Amino acid sequence: MNTRNRPGRHSSTLGQAPKPPYGLGTGQRALPSRPVGHFVAFEAVKQRSEIPPNPACVNSHGQPCRHPLTNTAQNHDLMACEAMVRGHFAAIEPTLRKIASLQREESFVESAQSIARAELGFELPARPLKDAWVNGLDVRALYGASVMRTIRLVIDKTQAIVNQDNEDDVAFFLDCGYHAVDITPCSDGRLKGLIRYILRLPGATIRSKKAYAGAMFDVEDNVARWIETELMRYREAIPVPADAGTRYLKIVVYHYSSSDPDHEGCAAHGSDERLAAKAGLDRLSEFRQAIENSFFCGASVDTLLIGVDTDTDSIRVHIPDANGEMTLDRWVCNLRLYQDTVNLDPTSARVKVFEAISDATVADAVEGPHEGMRRLIATLLINNLSQVEYVCGRYGGRYPDIGHNEQIISVGDGFGEFQVRNLAYFVYLHTVEESVQDLDVGIKIFTRLNVERGLPIPVSIHFRYDRRVPGSRERSIERCRRVGDAIKSRYKELYQQGLLICGATVQDMASGSPIEPIELDNILIGRV
Amino acid sequence: MNTRNRPGRHSSTLGQAPKPPYGLGTGQRALPSRPVGHFVAFEAVKQRSEIPPNPACVNSHGQPCRHPLTNTAQNHDLMACEAMVRGHFAAIEPTLRKIASLQREESFVESAQSIARAELGFELPARPLKDAWVNGLDVRALYGASVMRTIRLVIDKTQAIVNQDNEDDVAFFLDCGYHAVDITPCSDGRLKGLIRYILRLPGATIRSKKAYAGAMFDVEDNVARWIETELMRYREAIPVPADAGTRYLKIVVYHYSSSDPDHEGCAAHGSDERLAAKAGLDRLSEFRQAIENSFFCGASVDTLLIGVDTDTDSIRVHIPDANGEMTLDRWVCNLRLYQDTVNLDPTSARVKVFEAISDATVADAVEGPHEGMRRLIATLLINNLSQVEYVCGRYGGRYPDIGHNEQIISVGDGFGEFQVRNLAYFVYLHTVEESVQDLDVGIKIFTRLNVERGLPIPVSIHFRYDRRVPGSRERSIERCRRVGDAIKSRYKELYQQGLLICGATVQDMASGSPIEPIELDNILIGRV
Repeated sequence: MNTRNRPGRHSSTLGQAPKPPYGLGTGQRALPSRPVGHFVAFEAVKQRSEIPPNPACVNSHGQPCRHPLTNTAQNHDLMACEAMVRGHFAAIEPTLRKIASLQREESFVESAQSIARAELGFELPARPLKDAWVNGLDVRALYGASVMRTIRLVIDKTQAIVNQDNEDDVAFFLDCGYHAVDITPCSDGRLKGLIRYILRLPGATIRSKKAYAGAMFDVEDNVARWIETELMRYREAIPVPADAGTRYLKIVVYHYSSSDPDHEGCAAHGSDERLAAKAGLDRLSEFRQAIENSFFCGASVDTLLIGVDTDTDSIRVHIPDANGEMTLDRWVCNLRLYQDTVNLDPTSARVKVFEAISDATVADAVEGPHEGMRRLIATLLINNLSQVEYVCGRYGGRYPDIGHNEQIISVGDGFGEFQVRNLAYFVYLHTVEESVQDLDVGIKIFTRLNVERGLPIPVSIHFRYDRRVPGSRERSIERCRRVGDAIKSRYKELYQQGLLICGATVQDMASGSPIEPIELDNILIGRV
Repeated sequence: MNTRNRPGRHSSTLGQAPKPPYGLGTGQRALPSRPVGHFVAFEAVKQRSEIPPNPACVNSHGQPCRHPLTNTAQNHDLMACEAMVRGHFAAIEPTLRKIASLQREESFVESAQSIARAELGFELPARPLKDAWVNGLDVRALYGASVMRTIRLVIDKTQAIVNQDNEDDVAFFLDCGYHAVDITPCSDGRLKGLIRYILRLPGATIRSKKAYAGAMFDVEDNVARWIETELMRYREAIPVPADAGTRYLKIVVYHYSSSDPDHEGCAAHGSDERLAAKAGLDRLSEFRQAIENSFFCGASVDTLLIGVDTDTDSIRVHIPDANGEMTLDRWVCNLRLYQDTVNLDPTSARVKVFEAISDATVADAVEGPHEGMRRLIATLLINNLSQVEYVCGRYGGRYPDIGHNEQIISVGDGFGEFQVRNLAYFVYLHTVEESVQDLDVGIKIFTRLNVERGLPIPVSIHFRYDRRVPGSRERSIERCRRVGDAIKSRYKELYQQGLLICGATVQDMASGSPIEPIELDNILIGRV
């Protein structure tokens, strides 16, 4: 069925007419009918003949699967968005190769700019083009500049097509009993599409989505965010008054690879799926304890642990009991749920999802989670069914690039708009000093992806500021420069060879704010 | 008069029997009758014949001044404490010199340890002593180890003699209308005695006293602290409920040198007194605006700007008007006030202090600050009269070391117990990356103070943790190691020559918690 024709309020009652899976609105804004820019087919990095097919794609009639709860309109929109983003990045290399081949021609600068405008959508920095006749074309500088410019181009386009925060979105979480939802995924680029694609949640309503290597978030940092959220409830009754009985929800997302579990899982946990899950569970428990011990009067938070198979984008949700406790072994696998419900009618499929959640706790002989948590988990599972089908339809059930294949290293606060799998290796950081291990991993990945082919590693530094706080913008710019200097100093050799290129941008906190490029020392690309 | 015999509740009514200046209690715990350890006279670093005498010390009868409001018992206690602390540090060099002169003797190790125990109060690390016959005595290592061990010894003794937080202390601030008082001094070591000596405030009741170079505090960090304080009021009614009508007070303390204003003022502001004051005023205004703009419903804070003459420890307080606004030129000078009141009886002197505050705003034709702020300022001025006399009595009105003469660089959260002027150059930091300029200044100062004489720079890294937060202690230890590595890497050459020695300690948040030494890589002194 096409849920597009059934926009409706969310309802908590089972058995009613099926509601659209929760997430990005469908069709609020029409996407361009074909991908913008010159879309280049997404190439597999490695194809493994031994990888088993995705069970969700197996169909006895040889037809592609169609799940009754799939949001096909949303899948169509997301596909167009992904194609647009990937297309822009994929165009960079062939375009520069083409330009490089013309560098001895008479009217090289004009031809190059004309090609760049047509193929990339912007002009290249003039200097390397003008100087090419003397020193040869500085392809590394052009590559770096093109990647940085493409980031901004793609974000502008994404802001224009992705719907912003709306009241329904906030109302949904409140209906589930949560006034704030805070998600920590792993820094791994394969989770970069987590919110918009895998979980299909409206990014603007998530309180925080800072990524850490191995999802090992900073407890003190999280407690500070919780405190700020609480004060807004107490002082300003935002989003609801303190006595409304709602809670703060903290989610941790770990990941694994079903195709190559021993090598393509989470690097921070040695590709050990169980270790990754346990570390997430432990950190959630520490966070909960930190709040319970530091504040009195029943201060607490709900926690939730989710695993993602980065090959298929299917999730597993660890089901809390009535006390909010989770275990490593009690979870609902959405790939299995897809198979079990693909031939049902929408209502029966929906019932089955709720049953799967209940069955998990019944099997463990514990009481299930509260109504709101059940509803939230069911919604996440249903949303993710669409993503399972998305990967089946677009990639035959498994991504061709099951390993790292990112285009940039994104550091700082990260771009909220930038949610496509394997596009950015993201390190949430305030200083290089504190996050040097995460960064080292990123540099190692890109040494293989780029440096070995002679291309530089593009590092995009991005910080947000609060225009309501005097001097905040200036300080965020200063922070860009400080982090840029620290990166250049840490990876001095790469930088001096032109094999590491930093770009920097700042952005106001308010959702949909423009990206402002910042000039960094000795680097032209900020001007692009 | 001796205020010791008149303990009483603080009263806001002028003209009543004089109350004791507010601050450290007098005589709650008896100090040892003579300085502990081997007290070595405090030597002047530079004596300048051209420096004018302190006007507060001028007395027509050739007698030392005695101000009617001076807390002589407190001065006596503080003097003993200062002598104890300085004595321990001052003993290090002569003791090591003595030990070094014995290194060719037969029973060197035993003699050395016996001397160390007697003169320093602890044993030296065994290794350098044992190896001395082969390589010569490693005096640098012993110096570093002795300084680190002395820090802990001195803190233990200070904790034993300084009275802890008590209810009266909290009640005083509340009486003035403040539920929290947050003070930012400059990192300069000459302000290290600010809270206990210059302002005579009970350290444990101050919400925060983090030092920044030039007193240029981090607005975001301060807003976060304000948020946390507010939540405690709203959630837990600590220290008073949110509707009690109290406020948050943020104080900035800049400094200048009356003897050598162009060279010995605040380095961060080029020894420009007016610039230092203006920068402080601007930052306070930014902080106030940040809160007013980010939170609604009349969220605001009171602010106060104080200048300290680091040669005499006298303060000037910038008097806010009824709207809380201050100017660079409206202030009360406490040295002048001392002179104007030294010959009065206690009650008249007290009245004069309040009049000086009123006169400042009357002269500007603006309405004066609210009652609570007036009382707070009057208390600070009266407290500081004792310190003016302390400096007159002990140092002839001006410190002999008007310039830098610190013993250690203290980084991280800093030691609350460690409040003696010019003892530590303190850099409040979370990462070296963010505070590298402040640290560079410290290293430059110590290159002159120590390295030029062949002695290492002792850097004491100290972080506090919250035992209520799981993993907090482990993370604070990790932070010590990270900061230690970053310092060693930043000042590699000094470190490799043994001219930079790092020690590290952690401590629970709770007031009076023990100092726990942490072992750092390749450095023996953590074990001492």
